Amino acid sequence: MNDYSQLEKRLNYTFRDKQLIIEALTHKSYKKPYNNERLEFLGDAVLDLIVGEYLFKKFPKSDEGILSKIRASLVNESGFTLLARKIDLGSYIFLSLAEENNNGRDKPSLLSNAFEAVIGAVYLEAGLDTAKTISIKLLEECHPKIDLQSLSKDYKTALQELTQATHGVTPSYEMLGSSGPDHKKEFEIAVILDNETIASAKGKSKKDAQQKAAKIALEKLKG
Amino acid sequence: MNDYSQLEKRLNYTFRDKQLIIEALTHKSYKKPYNNERLEFLGDAVLDLIVGEYLFKKFPKSDEGILSKIRASLVNESGFTLLARKIDLGSYIFLSLAEENNNGRDKPSLLSNAFEAVIGAVYLEAGLDTAKTISIKLLEECHPKIDLQSLSKDYKTALQELTQATHGVTPSYEMLGSSGPDHKKEFEIAVILDNETIASAKGKSKKDAQQKAAKIALEKLKG
Repeated sequence: MNDYSQLEKRLNYTFRDKQLIIEALTHKSYKKPYNNERLEFLGDAVLDLIVGEYLFKKFPKSDEGILSKIRASLVNESGFTLLARKIDLGSYIFLSLAEENNNGRDKPSLLSNAFEAVIGAVYLEAGLDTAKTISIKLLEECHPKIDLQSLSKDYKTALQELTQATHGVTPSYEMLGSSGPDHKKEFEIAVILDNETIASAKGKSKKDAQQKAAKIALEKLKG
Repeated sequence: MNDYSQLEKRLNYTFRDKQLIIEALTHKSYKKPYNNERLEFLGDAVLDLIVGEYLFKKFPKSDEGILSKIRASLVNESGFTLLARKIDLGSYIFLSLAEENNNGRDKPSLLSNAFEAVIGAVYLEAGLDTAKTISIKLLEECHPKIDLQSLSKDYKTALQELTQATHGVTPSYEMLGSSGPDHKKEFEIAVILDNETIASAKGKSKKDAQQKAAKIALEKLKG
């Protein structure tokens, strides 16, 4: 039996209704009359609002296109997996033996969905403000610097996730060269996948060029 | 000058910060230093949560796939346009003369976005519960019967919206025939677009067959 009281300490929230936290932690493979999918549906919307409002207030001058992009870089499977790992959520999930042996406790989809379900459960029992306090604390711990850079960071991550799914490999980046005077240098970087250059881009720094190249590669691969 | 105090009466909510309701009502065409797009971003998430929670509680036995589908049938441009028209929101929007002459006050996108912005503004000033009361009242007035039928209704509406945008015409439905014994009759209906049959389907009633055919047509047209 998982001792979810440790999880409650990590969340700094104790559930009054223990069935609610049990449901939030129950993966559908566990074959109970309930599982965490309904709470995940609710938690997904709760988190969208919490992160949306957080960005709305943190960036009072940014237009909604920017806010949407930053949110999309945080509110997704890999983003929530990060938060789930921070509270060691995997250890507390109820799942089947088969799923357990299949490394289920460390699967991004499983962790991300359970995280949404836990926040959905907190929201149901304690309301939006409590869900907000818990989520924002975790978000800020996992993303010490939320800004437009954290947005572009996402292209490399997104590309890596995509190519692992489609090609079973991770892309590599290769510097093609640099040009321009020292104070205005430009770097050109290529993205290599399966020994083939799939995109290249120039940028003001190596990092910037990598992100731009990853973005182009993503667009190409997604057709 | 639009008298938004009438709108406040319709909403049964009076804004303390008048600049907030003015911002929510300001279309970007109005060329002010502010417009309603940021509030729309916030309101969109607020409404997603409000409607999601409403369905979560109204359908305690439905799985998250069903809840997602019903929500998608309510939380979209045509759904919000319906709610916006209910409070005559178009009359209170600040927009440019050009947009006004272009029938802007009756444009679904403009109405739907302004509705989201108004709910975003209520949420910011008065919190989730007030936004919930206002939205659910309107939702229930506009959709007296929210259930799985309201979901399937959406395929015909969605198809009509799509073909009007892509072909400038509305599809028609034609009965191809019926089969089976009286107590188990099946009807076959075709969807006609530009004198061409684009899909057909069988169903237990004419209505059912129309919905199924519309669904297939939608999938085909969307590629």
